[in-house]
Amino acid sequence: MSTTSSSAVTLASINPKVLKCEYAVCGEIVSHAQLLQEDLKAKPGSYSFDEIVYCNIGNPQSLGQPPVTFFREVLALCDHPSILDRDETHALFSADAIARATEILDVIPARAAGGYSSSQGTKGLREVIAAGIASRDGYPCNADDIFLTDGASSAVRMMMQLLISSEKDGIMCPIPLCPLYSASIALQGGFLVPYCLDETTGWGLETSELRKQFEDAHSKGITVKALVVINPGNPTGQVLEEENQRQIIEFCKKESLVILADEVYQDNIYVEEKKFNSFKKIVRSMGFCDKDISLVSFHSASKGFYGECGQRGGYMEAIGFSYAVREHNYKLACVNHCCPVMSGQILASLIMNPPKPGDESYESFSIERDGILSSLARRAKALEDAFNSIEGVTCNKAEGAMYLFPRIHLPKKAIEAAKAANSLPDAFYAHRLLDATGIVVVPGSGFGQVPGTWHVRCSILPQEDKIPGIISRFKAFHESFMQEFQD
Amino acid sequence: MSTTSSSAVTLASINPKVLKCEYAVCGEIVSHAQLLQEDLKAKPGSYSFDEIVYCNIGNPQSLGQPPVTFFREVLALCDHPSILDRDETHALFSADAIARATEILDVIPARAAGGYSSSQGTKGLREVIAAGIASRDGYPCNADDIFLTDGASSAVRMMMQLLISSEKDGIMCPIPLCPLYSASIALQGGFLVPYCLDETTGWGLETSELRKQFEDAHSKGITVKALVVINPGNPTGQVLEEENQRQIIEFCKKESLVILADEVYQDNIYVEEKKFNSFKKIVRSMGFCDKDISLVSFHSASKGFYGECGQRGGYMEAIGFSYAVREHNYKLACVNHCCPVMSGQILASLIMNPPKPGDESYESFSIERDGILSSLARRAKALEDAFNSIEGVTCNKAEGAMYLFPRIHLPKKAIEAAKAANSLPDAFYAHRLLDATGIVVVPGSGFGQVPGTWHVRCSILPQEDKIPGIISRFKAFHESFMQEFQD
Repeated sequence: MSTTSSSAVTLASINPKVLKCEYAVCGEIVSHAQLLQEDLKAKPGSYSFDEIVYCNIGNPQSLGQPPVTFFREVLALCDHPSILDRDETHALFSADAIARATEILDVIPARAAGGYSSSQGTKGLREVIAAGIASRDGYPCNADDIFLTDGASSAVRMMMQLLISSEKDGIMCPIPLCPLYSASIALQGGFLVPYCLDETTGWGLETSELRKQFEDAHSKGITVKALVVINPGNPTGQVLEEENQRQIIEFCKKESLVILADEVYQDNIYVEEKKFNSFKKIVRSMGFCDKDISLVSFHSASKGFYGECGQRGGYMEAIGFSYAVREHNYKLACVNHCCPVMSGQILASLIMNPPKPGDESYESFSIERDGILSSLARRAKALEDAFNSIEGVTCNKAEGAMYLFPRIHLPKKAIEAAKAANSLPDAFYAHRLLDATGIVVVPGSGFGQVPGTWHVRCSILPQEDKIPGIISRFKAFHESFMQEFQD
Repeated sequence: MSTTSSSAVTLASINPKVLKCEYAVCGEIVSHAQLLQEDLKAKPGSYSFDEIVYCNIGNPQSLGQPPVTFFREVLALCDHPSILDRDETHALFSADAIARATEILDVIPARAAGGYSSSQGTKGLREVIAAGIASRDGYPCNADDIFLTDGASSAVRMMMQLLISSEKDGIMCPIPLCPLYSASIALQGGFLVPYCLDETTGWGLETSELRKQFEDAHSKGITVKALVVINPGNPTGQVLEEENQRQIIEFCKKESLVILADEVYQDNIYVEEKKFNSFKKIVRSMGFCDKDISLVSFHSASKGFYGECGQRGGYMEAIGFSYAVREHNYKLACVNHCCPVMSGQILASLIMNPPKPGDESYESFSIERDGILSSLARRAKALEDAFNSIEGVTCNKAEGAMYLFPRIHLPKKAIEAAKAANSLPDAFYAHRLLDATGIVVVPGSGFGQVPGTWHVRCSILPQEDKIPGIISRFKAFHESFMQEFQD
């Protein structure tokens, strides 16, 4: 394709909001990694490493994690229901997968997984999810509050579309922050009101900081519409205490802010002393009903122990939205995606209603689930310990989610060298790491960080047998880097 | 859920662009149909009809069209690859479906259909699609020009995001128009520059009309960025002549407009004298290269004879975009959908590379395809003839696509009655039709129409054995309606 075009679309003619938007997770370092990977394939042995290890994104199956068998059995049967009654099918598939696929098809109009569903998602599947939420929280859930979506990202985008009309509309977001939020706010032309998590207290979330930033934004003429809270944290991995959640809810109620609760890592908790509590549960336990507060909880089939990223399943539960607003949200869903993809809808119902004791698949399902989660916990701990054992690196615990966000204490000379290379110091570090080891991490600047501090986000997802090699390569690189740039 | 909320999100606090946006296909009449359907289920026999017939949307499988067997075999095997080598699988699935699933998994990194792919779509699948396009057009196609998307709608939205920065940016669109375009332009805050199709010449597209509307918009200070052309037409069903396509291309080249070619109905042609030519093919046949013109062709797995709406497969081929712009488009894809859903990606590759002569499935695949297409052609003709046989209704031929757009010549008294009911005349008519017959059509006002003319869009998708009943119910309703409101 030509790069100098006479009639072609050029940078000058496109939407400046698109130009401005940044998205580090798929950014320049990942493109560089892909080039290295192609080069490595073409010229094996030409690097000091023999593969690229993608720790930049929460993409477990691409790193070798097998899918959950029961989920895939059900998906396959829903895709090809004409084999449901065949004898060979009973030899190939578990009985409860066959039963579940039949139940699912029974709630899809005309049993057609190839038809458009309601833009809000198939009602019968929303009812299954609502029952799963009710059972998780111990409070009722209304299927009409559920919007099925293509992963959580399309739900987040829909909320930003609904809430933001101009650069005077503010959304409060934690710093560091999963860049999906900053990018969605930028594309919608809104204002990101940052609130900083406190690294020294394990990425603590202080309401005094919320208040300070809210008032600061207000004084600048910003109408703050909503507050994003990510629990378990991304990229920071902390799990909120119940008391802290109550404070956040009180703050949002007082200021009439919609709580946008990213709860996609709710199944990823790695420490015994912490437990996931949904914001919905805490809101209800405080006695608040729909007229008191507006809350959206995002969930996804891409994360958890199932990690079905490519299947694009997800939902949001939206409470405290007037009926009229929900009608507009429904219209947005129609325009944005016609309907959420059926396989994703089915998966979303499966993650909220997995096999139960007594089902044929229950034991094998439990073994798969526990195997993945316990391995993730070991990987999180091994990487955390390794980072903390390295001079010039400090790292909070990953209590949950899929990442560590170690702080790299860079020497002045490295910062100057980065500047000379027209790069941010953490991006400079991450590039050197990639070139030396094949390990892909995301520079902390892509998430936001307290000025003068530098981090990288590193997923805990490489398969367990690779972790020792990653650690030793990282250590060796870091020592050599620090030696090169010592002050 | 409460409708009067103190802290809940209300209409006053949401984005006015969302309030303003309209989307007739899922609009008020469809909600009414769903209520009727529930009522009918609860109280069978309480209406003069025994089912709701959804002619409002191009959703063939929900109306009983079975999926294409080969496509579903491949999808199921990609979902659950661990059965690929089992003996029972060979008894249940065709050999070429097993081979194809294996080929597809081989081009997916880590063979993981549950992993995120590149946000542009899996390279190996884009290569298959590019080969299919090259074979269709007789001109080369570059896999780097293909962006896989969740159906065509997400591709359209992405292009509107890329091209529109303010209400001064105009997109030329045919009237009548598939409302996805008007809704996407409204949500993005752009300006829709309408050009009217000529009903008297079978929805002809005149370049004199393009020029007139372009100049009119220009004189109002609008920067026209792109021209949408839908071929075969939706809702209008016409298939463009090659000479007409050349004129459109010349016009867009002269005015540096991006051609946004909606070609999702390319496999749906029902008349022998017409043939689908892609805009890409015509552009190339005119000798234009990437620097001469920017063109985006949208395609979807939701339409054609396959009708896999719920699977959300689609792609766009974008030529004449600078490398830098394409990088921004890639970023938009990352933010908008992380990656297109894998099952949709697989389906998009299948529709562009179906079984070939010699493959085990070729014969059964051909029988399924030809059966569906010939039946659609018969249904289109039967409905067209029926509409034209009714006094006060005239209807152009459906040469392609999935709809008829008959003009309803409403008497003055009906128009007055509609006004008194605070309704548009065509919406009033469509409501009465639904209440009397259970047939759901979309009022023409949802698509735009020449002022003073009234239409409805009616899909040709109900199964063939239902067509005579639909026709007789429609006729009886129309006669009674006309009698009630005769001038």
